Amino acid sequence: MNTLDKINVAIIGLGYVGLPLLKLFSGRYSCTGIDSDSNLILRLQKEYLIQYRKSENFVHYTNKYSEITKSDIIIITVPTPVDQNNKPNLQFLESACINIGPYLKQGSMIIFESTVAPGTTEEVCIPLLEKHSNKKLNKDFFVGYSPERVNVGDLQHTTYKTPKIISASSDYALDIVERLYSSVIEAPLTKATSIKVAEAAKMYENVQRDVLIGLANEYSEFCRAIGINIHEVTQCASSKWNFSNVLPGLVGGHCIGVDTYYLLKKAEETGQSLFIIKTARDTNENKSNIVSNRIIDAIKTRKLEPCDTNVLILGFTYKKDSSDIRNTKVAEIIKRIRGKVKRIDCYDPLVDIQSAKDNYDLDVITDFSEITDHYDMVIKLVNHSCFESFVMDNIVELSSLL
Amino acid sequence: MNTLDKINVAIIGLGYVGLPLLKLFSGRYSCTGIDSDSNLILRLQKEYLIQYRKSENFVHYTNKYSEITKSDIIIITVPTPVDQNNKPNLQFLESACINIGPYLKQGSMIIFESTVAPGTTEEVCIPLLEKHSNKKLNKDFFVGYSPERVNVGDLQHTTYKTPKIISASSDYALDIVERLYSSVIEAPLTKATSIKVAEAAKMYENVQRDVLIGLANEYSEFCRAIGINIHEVTQCASSKWNFSNVLPGLVGGHCIGVDTYYLLKKAEETGQSLFIIKTARDTNENKSNIVSNRIIDAIKTRKLEPCDTNVLILGFTYKKDSSDIRNTKVAEIIKRIRGKVKRIDCYDPLVDIQSAKDNYDLDVITDFSEITDHYDMVIKLVNHSCFESFVMDNIVELSSLL
Repeated sequence: MNTLDKINVAIIGLGYVGLPLLKLFSGRYSCTGIDSDSNLILRLQKEYLIQYRKSENFVHYTNKYSEITKSDIIIITVPTPVDQNNKPNLQFLESACINIGPYLKQGSMIIFESTVAPGTTEEVCIPLLEKHSNKKLNKDFFVGYSPERVNVGDLQHTTYKTPKIISASSDYALDIVERLYSSVIEAPLTKATSIKVAEAAKMYENVQRDVLIGLANEYSEFCRAIGINIHEVTQCASSKWNFSNVLPGLVGGHCIGVDTYYLLKKAEETGQSLFIIKTARDTNENKSNIVSNRIIDAIKTRKLEPCDTNVLILGFTYKKDSSDIRNTKVAEIIKRIRGKVKRIDCYDPLVDIQSAKDNYDLDVITDFSEITDHYDMVIKLVNHSCFESFVMDNIVELSSLL
Repeated sequence: MNTLDKINVAIIGLGYVGLPLLKLFSGRYSCTGIDSDSNLILRLQKEYLIQYRKSENFVHYTNKYSEITKSDIIIITVPTPVDQNNKPNLQFLESACINIGPYLKQGSMIIFESTVAPGTTEEVCIPLLEKHSNKKLNKDFFVGYSPERVNVGDLQHTTYKTPKIISASSDYALDIVERLYSSVIEAPLTKATSIKVAEAAKMYENVQRDVLIGLANEYSEFCRAIGINIHEVTQCASSKWNFSNVLPGLVGGHCIGVDTYYLLKKAEETGQSLFIIKTARDTNENKSNIVSNRIIDAIKTRKLEPCDTNVLILGFTYKKDSSDIRNTKVAEIIKRIRGKVKRIDCYDPLVDIQSAKDNYDLDVITDFSEITDHYDMVIKLVNHSCFESFVMDNIVELSSLL
């Protein structure tokens, strides 16, 4: 691969990481987009035919891993979630390695972007690739690791403008990874001294965030106890040059909360106790419990009996202006409150009803006209922009419950 | 105090906070500098006579609190340390209030800059001022709180250029505090909604730093366990826009480590458990123990018997290029190692020998020619610039012990 001019780049996993990446690469290379979700593939094929058929480079969408036989570079952007007990679930990553193994070309390069515990690429992915390809690392194929840093809803830090960490299985491979990403990304690349260092760096970024939010949640409780407001305190502290402006909140989603469990499991295996990280994680997990109790308290403060009260929750997703409901803490809060009030409904026009039903067994209202009941309390748990024009008496804001 | 033109500003406590502040204010106002250390006052009087006697404004140095009868504004910058058991010691702050009380003018303004637990100004300082002045707050005198943010050795964030939080006992008082500081400081001022909010903000800044260093110390141990280097990991992670580039280290000094104990005591009084903050503090306290053990391990790695080994420690202060030895962790490390090796010496040309002797009962070598022994191991625990040109075989760097 002395020249990257005529290569084909395959992206496996066409979610919030893979799709923007595919869009970037397809501006310069012929690409193959692979996802096991055949409905998604059908939709992408249709969109492509309508929008992009006149574009210079070719994008082929498929759910067949065998089609990577044509690809020189394969980038894996599958999710690395946790199960219901917060146990890391590597099934998507392992499946990707097993599925592409038989179709690897001589000299091909596999780059992982998924967030994993340090050591995973070398201890889990490479052995699977070698086994299922019957090929040898750094002889028949090469591996890179360059963690995604997508910040959902962040219009400033797009894939094109986000600095990237790169690492690889050999100097030769690192050179290819560097040339590849620098050909499509404007932001600077930082070379890690090893794959493990790159994995540990991405993990550190997200764990540091988890700890800072945990600290904000903890300090918020202290501020309440002494009768002051954490938001006013944070605003003042943020005028210091090196203060991280992090607010208390519910940590949901597929990223910050999840990654910490990958690290904690790895640390356990190596006999390390990560006391600060574990304590911060527990603090963040407990915040939905605290918020649930405060909602009941807010009902009582208004001289209402919880068991006679109809409650409307505004917002169901884990993040503002997103439709993403992965690990949303709103589901947990609704379940905690449900038995204690007369009725609790949740309105979120951004959410896919079926997905909420499948994942949480909850009926989310997405059509405003369906809200027919009278509600005694309205609690806004997600700050969607569409709620800004929402005129209702006495909406309780999440920030007053944190 | 409609106009600040002809006021006299007194600064009480002429240390690393008070002196730069006095220098700033004396450029614009006539000033009184007060410190209970009469040797310091004599030295400052001499320096002033030599250097500043031709300057426009008058600075009067004294150790007599009675001289504040002439002052309209009194700024208190005394230290708030902890004792040997890490118990907050408010004696300097309380003494300042007791000592100035009898001499307060009608309408005078007392501004506190010392870092304290939220609530201290209103619960401790103001009652003492009222009692010893026999005057009433917001009638006879006013109080402000504007925490210092001095970063020792930081040439960029000087007092003139450091943004400031301001708060006061009334709107009238806040207006004076604002006009006063904005007349001598270039950086923006942030108004806190109350004195308690300003106290809590300063506390949050330092506690967040303590937690971030604690996290770095914890993650460093994990990185060691999996065979990678935290410094390489941090360098990669720092390429992310919102990552706080904080390195592992020994937390000494009068600031970060100390302030957390003030918060923890206050939290205990209010029945709050600050688990993350306490865990991070313990992690940082334990780091000198870890470093001590690693020094012994480093001796053994070189196939030396600790009890036959002469060790030279380079650096004694708590911070690079500073002479400040308050809460230096080097003293703790020397005491831990002392009985285990043949001989341990410490060389630091920046340190005051007598002060090291008085505070830690340790003889620090400050003159290089006095280093006569042969040393089997040289451990650099402080990165003073003057050590850069130091040519010695096999110097062990602190970074390799963290």
